Amino acid sequence: LTIEYDGTDYVGWQIQPNGSSIQEMVEHALARLLGESVRVHSSGRTDAGVHARGMVVHFHTGRTLPIRAYQKGLNHFLPDDISVVTADTVASQFHARFSAKGKWYRYTLLPTAVSRPLCARYSWQLDESLDVEKMRLAAQYFVGEHDFSAFRGAGSDTRTTVRRIESCSFEMQDELIHFDVHGSGFLKNMIRIMVGTLVEIGTGRRSAASIPDLLSSGNRSEAGKTAPPQGLCLMEVYY
Amino acid sequence: LTIEYDGTDYVGWQIQPNGSSIQEMVEHALARLLGESVRVHSSGRTDAGVHARGMVVHFHTGRTLPIRAYQKGLNHFLPDDISVVTADTVASQFHARFSAKGKWYRYTLLPTAVSRPLCARYSWQLDESLDVEKMRLAAQYFVGEHDFSAFRGAGSDTRTTVRRIESCSFEMQDELIHFDVHGSGFLKNMIRIMVGTLVEIGTGRRSAASIPDLLSSGNRSEAGKTAPPQGLCLMEVYY
Repeated sequence: LTIEYDGTDYVGWQIQPNGSSIQEMVEHALARLLGESVRVHSSGRTDAGVHARGMVVHFHTGRTLPIRAYQKGLNHFLPDDISVVTADTVASQFHARFSAKGKWYRYTLLPTAVSRPLCARYSWQLDESLDVEKMRLAAQYFVGEHDFSAFRGAGSDTRTTVRRIESCSFEMQDELIHFDVHGSGFLKNMIRIMVGTLVEIGTGRRSAASIPDLLSSGNRSEAGKTAPPQGLCLMEVYY
Repeated sequence: LTIEYDGTDYVGWQIQPNGSSIQEMVEHALARLLGESVRVHSSGRTDAGVHARGMVVHFHTGRTLPIRAYQKGLNHFLPDDISVVTADTVASQFHARFSAKGKWYRYTLLPTAVSRPLCARYSWQLDESLDVEKMRLAAQYFVGEHDFSAFRGAGSDTRTTVRRIESCSFEMQDELIHFDVHGSGFLKNMIRIMVGTLVEIGTGRRSAASIPDLLSSGNRSEAGKTAPPQGLCLMEVYY
């Protein structure tokens, strides 16, 4: 399944005891459609308040509904802020997480002196102007294979902190600034910490040249703060 | 004041007994800021669920706060989905409605077979494909001065039903279709009925050539249905 969701009202993708998660909603909808309990395996997690245009999950079921029934049927049981956009049958060895070759995340910034309600759900509104050219140059230091320990949120637990970033680019759309990142995989909060650090460069509080030092130091406390979740969207997972 | 708002949770601009209006929120905020009851005069009304990027209002007050205090101060008392974007002093003969020379409205369509939560608040999602070129040609019949009786919602009461449309254009942004209308003024539901009619042309259920007949008939029941409110946004008022 490819799933689009507005993460505003959820505790994140993963099932948690403290509130509604997107995973829980999808599994409930599957249970209602199939009449059996189903566990879904996702390409990854998104944090509370983070959105997705193309989250991918797989699951196994003994039921054989026509493929079209999954998309229509699940949307019947899902709330308005979660939607199954496509459904397909996959080979038994396919795994939404382990088969993924890469992901595209987009973080949207809006420099504005006043609150802008029509963009509030999907951007980080900052009361500072940003030098996007400086941020664009600084972001090139992230490209390639690096140890991203300095850009990892607390409480994560992974085998390795080395990740490969394929590209970082900025795109302007009226007053919005979109930061697009393609990479093989990402650590917890990694993109939000990258954005928090790039914003300090864009406002002139930090130099672009500090990024290589940050990467080699591996020291989270020297990186920028974690950018707020509502600016982030998982755009696409590549297989 | 120039005001941006997300109209999703309101009964519309105008104060009404059946729920919260944007006007009520703005007047409450002014009362709290100024310590006196203030009536605001708007450039027009927006229906329940319609948004604004640039609603303009004026008001009179005996208090003399620095102009900057209005914008910052009012936003302190306003909910997150309403924001005063600019504030300025105007000549005593200025009237937000009667001094307006024109308005720009935008209606956003999203042709999609499945629900797309990330666009749901700000577009009309249609399970049909649209021939935008046909709609573009048909919309040219609206340009100029016409009696728009056939494009007027019930329950409105105006001196004349003649309005002047300066331009109608379509702009594509990824999968979104923006319909931009500039005109001197608009009747109740006028743009939403224009959009409902244009969509019937885009899907092939109605011919573009039927628009001149519709305009001369003045018969509301022959026009298309009223498009839903969430696609509409008052972009700018010109003085």
